[in-house]
Amino acid sequence: MVPLPAEEAEHLRRVLRLGPGARVDVFDGRGHEWEGEVAECDRQQVTVRLLRTQLPRPESSVAIVLVTAVLKGDGMEHVVRDAVMLGVHAIRPVVTSRTEISLAALTRSERAARWRRIAVASAKQCGRAVVPVVSDPVPLDDVLSRMPSYSQRLCLVEPSAAPDGTISVTALGAAPARAALLVGPEGGWAPEELRTIVGAGWTPVSVGARTLRAETVPVVALTAVSVVWRDL
Amino acid sequence: MVPLPAEEAEHLRRVLRLGPGARVDVFDGRGHEWEGEVAECDRQQVTVRLLRTQLPRPESSVAIVLVTAVLKGDGMEHVVRDAVMLGVHAIRPVVTSRTEISLAALTRSERAARWRRIAVASAKQCGRAVVPVVSDPVPLDDVLSRMPSYSQRLCLVEPSAAPDGTISVTALGAAPARAALLVGPEGGWAPEELRTIVGAGWTPVSVGARTLRAETVPVVALTAVSVVWRDL
Repeated sequence: MVPLPAEEAEHLRRVLRLGPGARVDVFDGRGHEWEGEVAECDRQQVTVRLLRTQLPRPESSVAIVLVTAVLKGDGMEHVVRDAVMLGVHAIRPVVTSRTEISLAALTRSERAARWRRIAVASAKQCGRAVVPVVSDPVPLDDVLSRMPSYSQRLCLVEPSAAPDGTISVTALGAAPARAALLVGPEGGWAPEELRTIVGAGWTPVSVGARTLRAETVPVVALTAVSVVWRDL
Repeated sequence: MVPLPAEEAEHLRRVLRLGPGARVDVFDGRGHEWEGEVAECDRQQVTVRLLRTQLPRPESSVAIVLVTAVLKGDGMEHVVRDAVMLGVHAIRPVVTSRTEISLAALTRSERAARWRRIAVASAKQCGRAVVPVVSDPVPLDDVLSRMPSYSQRLCLVEPSAAPDGTISVTALGAAPARAALLVGPEGGWAPEELRTIVGAGWTPVSVGARTLRAETVPVVALTAVSVVWRDL
């Protein structure tokens, strides 16, 4: 018997209008999934009796951390939703030179809590038993030097501002166990910032010759590496 | 000397606030691009003196026609914007069993004209000298049997509703000269409709094991085939 979190309990009772005896699938967000049956269901609590373990859908074989600049408006919500559906392992929002929202404003508005709710909803919708962790936003510098265990650290760059040494995503080698993808904001990278990123050991990569919308870049990049690494 | 279309003239004069002598790049949307100089600029007309031909960015080597069910809300606008940036050759909106908007409502609201304006804006933004043609929406049946010259006709299917014979996009063979990609609406394909599509010679293909948002499918599918066909 497990109690559902308040938000899921409310959803089950008021939106789905289910009651005792209803069959439901439940998951713990860390890779376990069960077939269950609603036991108790009232305003205080919804509990589910676990009937049998289900084999969850396999996760991607490459654990990809998406380090993404916070986008304006609902752009970031689209990114979180799509990245979860494309199988990312974790999402680390960062504030860069050209990010239009300050860290203080992000913290005050509790945006990270909203992104986490979207990650849960997206995992449910696409059938993943794992909910990727969405971190609190931090300054870009806090992340740059802290991911040394990732053998592939890739920074997406615009075709018009690609520094020397930029490679096409299609030229990447064999699939690593863990990879980090770094994506910039609407206005792209500031030149000095990009030098710092490359200086910290990140490889600049491009996804084609045309400029894409900021919120489309993560989708295109995640899809492209999944195909290149045979992990779609 | 060429006159600009009314909408571009207005944009140059009132948003960009340019006047005679300003250097501008102009393109005809059919693959030609020039460096030019604003000659006349008043309320009636803006004309540009063409100074020299520019070498436009090369187009994709595979001419891909995106046949896409019309999506709800601004979903279709995102699809048009992103598909142009990802290099499609043409966009054919279709109305399917589960499309939530009727052909009559689409025609009345002049949605296709809006999508064409978005295609122009998107081509300008991403640096393409070719504006893909966006057709008026038609019933799916009108398109199914009319694309026999496309050696690859691929219908994107959801993992949970993939019919026999579905292949992964990563298993596609060598790049064709022309390809058609068919993408369904939010509710997916109706079972009978999917049988008709496959019966008309389209190959069902999947892009991974997880369910994606309808407006994300074209981006993922276009990116995946571009990588597989080495045409990103």
